[in-house]
Formats: sequence, structure tokens, C-alpha cells
Amino acid sequence: MIDSRAPLGSGTSPAAPPRRAAFFVSDSTGITAETLGSALLVNFPGIAFDHHTIPFVDTPSRAAAVVAEVERAAAAGQGPIIFTTVKQASLRALLAASPAVTIDLLAGHLVELERALGTTASEQLGQYHGVGDLEKYHARMRAVEYAIEHDDGQSARALDLADVIVIAPSRCGKTPTTMYLALQYGLLVANYPLTDDDFPTEGLPRTVAPYAARCFGLTTTPLRLSQVRHERRPRSQYASLAQCTLELRRAEDLYRRHRIPFLNSSTKSVEEMSAVIMQTMKLRA
Amino acid sequence: MIDSRAPLGSGTSPAAPPRRAAFFVSDSTGITAETLGSALLVNFPGIAFDHHTIPFVDTPSRAAAVVAEVERAAAAGQGPIIFTTVKQASLRALLAASPAVTIDLLAGHLVELERALGTTASEQLGQYHGVGDLEKYHARMRAVEYAIEHDDGQSARALDLADVIVIAPSRCGKTPTTMYLALQYGLLVANYPLTDDDFPTEGLPRTVAPYAARCFGLTTTPLRLSQVRHERRPRSQYASLAQCTLELRRAEDLYRRHRIPFLNSSTKSVEEMSAVIMQTMKLRA
Repeated sequence: MIDSRAPLGSGTSPAAPPRRAAFFVSDSTGITAETLGSALLVNFPGIAFDHHTIPFVDTPSRAAAVVAEVERAAAAGQGPIIFTTVKQASLRALLAASPAVTIDLLAGHLVELERALGTTASEQLGQYHGVGDLEKYHARMRAVEYAIEHDDGQSARALDLADVIVIAPSRCGKTPTTMYLALQYGLLVANYPLTDDDFPTEGLPRTVAPYAARCFGLTTTPLRLSQVRHERRPRSQYASLAQCTLELRRAEDLYRRHRIPFLNSSTKSVEEMSAVIMQTMKLRA
Repeated sequence: MIDSRAPLGSGTSPAAPPRRAAFFVSDSTGITAETLGSALLVNFPGIAFDHHTIPFVDTPSRAAAVVAEVERAAAAGQGPIIFTTVKQASLRALLAASPAVTIDLLAGHLVELERALGTTASEQLGQYHGVGDLEKYHARMRAVEYAIEHDDGQSARALDLADVIVIAPSRCGKTPTTMYLALQYGLLVANYPLTDDDFPTEGLPRTVAPYAARCFGLTTTPLRLSQVRHERRPRSQYASLAQCTLELRRAEDLYRRHRIPFLNSSTKSVEEMSAVIMQTMKLRA
């Protein structure tokens, strides 16, 4: 069977790598299974995996539906692998009887923990991505709304409440990073663009200057910035390599002059940037 | 020692539950360690844990700093537990020599996977939350910007491109859910408020009516909605239980009449709602 995702022509090559089916099966959202399972699979870069996340498998009939899907993958020669965080032992047994290698991400560690804590796990098994208390729900909602209101310097209404203010030239990744910090950690995060107008003064933009100690800068490589800007405004002065080089040099000079911590977003994911910002600004325990 | 987080008075009670220190130690962002470690700990509701996430532990000196912190927790009687996804064996050995129970979330499963796949894990160990390719980066950035632009019916510019349109009365959780789907999965998600004005017609709001097949509704309980609205506008008509009851009943009638799938957000986290929406709207493989 020709793999439609392979580069042109490689489907007919005898050296085409095999694709295998990876199932992330959970009785809740599937986030934990998907996260750890994917973290494990990246260690095998020579094999291509088709990912299937199947949440809410909490009844025998839903488990049977997963098994049917796994059987189809096995029949298609995709050597299926199941990563599971399903808590009910009877459902796990159904999955384990399918023609897949099953890797249980919870049960073994629960036994280790029971030993370490000298107690047995609750009968009523817990759920990590379940709803929190109303206060936590409010905090998260408030943080996302704060981030939308204070995105890209659109408002400075409650800038004094910001846990961190992300500053950078246009298209360095401010918005996704801001939103991730708000959504995952309930932090109040604003972001503010550095434009050409800000540099002649050699100072921080007046709006954020009072909060310099809470600012965090982003930079990137000129080439990357130019690529990202061409996506938005093809063949513009704004996207030119010369303009990008200039803006990034000025931004980095500004960060250094004002001792604002900064990082290069070109080789970092949103998750990594968020982790660095939280660590640098001491925003978590 | 009196626990400042315990309810008033319980610090002096001999039955105060012990607090233990849980360390999530990673050579990358810590997200995987934190996610799975937390999913395991919720199974022990009788014990209170102080969570410490320590990312970027990728040198012996950083591992030594973690060990020093773990030793302080042990000395304070907090019976520390380490959950680790550190890949380098020499660093894991440093952690394992600390006075903590160490639970290795990766190494054991990697061995299982090597056996299943008939190959050894890459020497250059993989990183799941690392930067993706430029195209994926663009998609995610575009999705977050789309969600901000199309939040709360503010714009209908590119509504025809939406993968899903979340509709609900004010304060049912549209915005955080929208943002989560955009950020985690790069989906184009708009959201649109159902206001009193929309109901007399008994039809969908005109703006979203052409895309009824892509609409997903949220509802909640009147009490919960009233609590959340009081947070925003205390003692208003808008927040009254009568008004909330009325709006929710009308919204649910609307969903049923137009066969729009919907769910009750009062007992669901943003992650759970997102997983249900993706599954219902068939937005993932």
C-alpha cells in the first residue's frame, strides 16, 4: 500500500519505512496517555507511527470498539501498540487481549507508589484532568480573558496586575506563549510589541517601562522571522531580511541595556518557552 | 509545624494529615513528568502533596541542586518522592541516590518498547515538547490568532474557515475551551454568545446559522452560572438565578431544535470539554 504521506516516489521504494499504529487509550481525556506515549515514541525516529487518541473508554463496549479498531490495524500489517491509562482492571484486560503490544502507563507505577506511601490507592480512582474547584476555574477563565484583553499592546487597563509582560518585535511568538501560560497555569500575562517607534528613544516603551522587572523578551533568528513574516505579508519591507535583522538587533540591545531576561524562540516550542519564563521569573514553586 | 494551608485550627490537631513533597524532575519542560506524576498522586486523596516541578535538569550540577532540595524536604519530614523523565542514566543515578523514593516514568517503558519494536531507542534521545517544524508552528500561531479574532462573536471575518463554532450563553466556558483547542491542536475555533436577542426568533443567530453543522453548544447548571456571573457583576439581573435558568433553558431548547450537540460544562474541565468536542465533531484521527 502506498503511503500518501511519504515523499513523492518513496511509496514505491522497497526501503520505505514501515508505519505502525499507536493507540493512546484512556478512560478520561487521553491527555496523559498521549503525552507520555508520544514522549516514548520520539525515541524511535526510524519508525513512522500513526497516532490514534481514544478518550472516554470506560465501559466494556467502548473497550470492545477499541479492540476492533486495533484488530483492523493489525490486519493491515501496522503492528499496533496500545498505551493505556485506563484504571479499571477488567477493561485493561480486554485491551491486553487484543493483537497489540499493550504498555500500561499507570498500573505499575501505582504499585510503586503504594509501596512508597505505605497505603493503597483509592478505590474511587482519581482523575487528573477533571474539573477543579470553582476558584481554580475562575482563575483560569480570568487569565485567558486577561491575555486576550492585553494581547499585542491592545490594552494597558490592568497591566499593573501582570505576572509577566512578554515583549518582542512582531511575529516572535508572543501570543501563543502568552496564551499557554494563561491557560495552563492561570497566570496573568500581557504582551507588548516592540515597533520601530520604540527604538529611537533607546528606552523601554513608555507603557511597559514602569513594569520593567516583570518584562521578559523574545528574540529569534532573522531568517526565521523573515519566513514567518512572509507568511503574513509576502514580499513586504516588513518581512525583508534586512528589516528583520535590524529589529532583532535593536530588541536584543534593548533587553541587555535594561537587564531584561530574554530567549531565542526559533529553536523552542511554546511549552519550552513557557517553562523557561516560569523558571526565570520564579513563577512556580 | 503548623500548616498554613490547612483549615483554621487543624494545624494544632494531632490528626492533621502529613504533607509530602513531590518533585517532578525533567531534562526538558517537565510537562510529561508533571502530568503523569499528578495523575498518579490523585489516587491517594488521603495525603496532601506539595508539588515542585523542576525543568531542564540536564547537567550533573543541576541534578545536584535537585538533590539538595530533596534533602531539605527529607530533613523537614516531608518524605519526598521524585517522579523523573530524565533520560541520561548518569543523571538518573544521581537522583536515585537522594533520600527520596524515585519513580522513573520513562526508562522501564522504553525497555518494553524496545522489545515490542525489535530495535533500540535512539542514542540521541528524543524530546516530545521540543519545537516542531515551521509549518506546525505556523498552524498553531494562526489558530491562536484566529481564536482571539473570533472570540465572543467579535468578528465573523473568517467564520467559514472554522473547524468548530462553540455557542453558549455568556459565562458557560466558551473562551477557555476555544483557546485550549486552538493551542493544543491547532484547530480553527470561533465562539459566539447566545444573548436574549437571539431567542425570540427561535432560530440560530444569523451569523452562525449557515454553519449549523459545525456548531457545538455549551450549557451549565443555573446555580453554577449564577455564581460565575456574580463574580463578574455582583447582584445584577444578569447574574440572577431566574435569568440564568431562563437563558440556559432557551439555549438547550435551541440546541435540541437544531440538532446541535452540546454538553454541560459544570462538571467538566476545559480538557474534558475539548476531548468531547473533538470526538463528537470528529476532529481527530
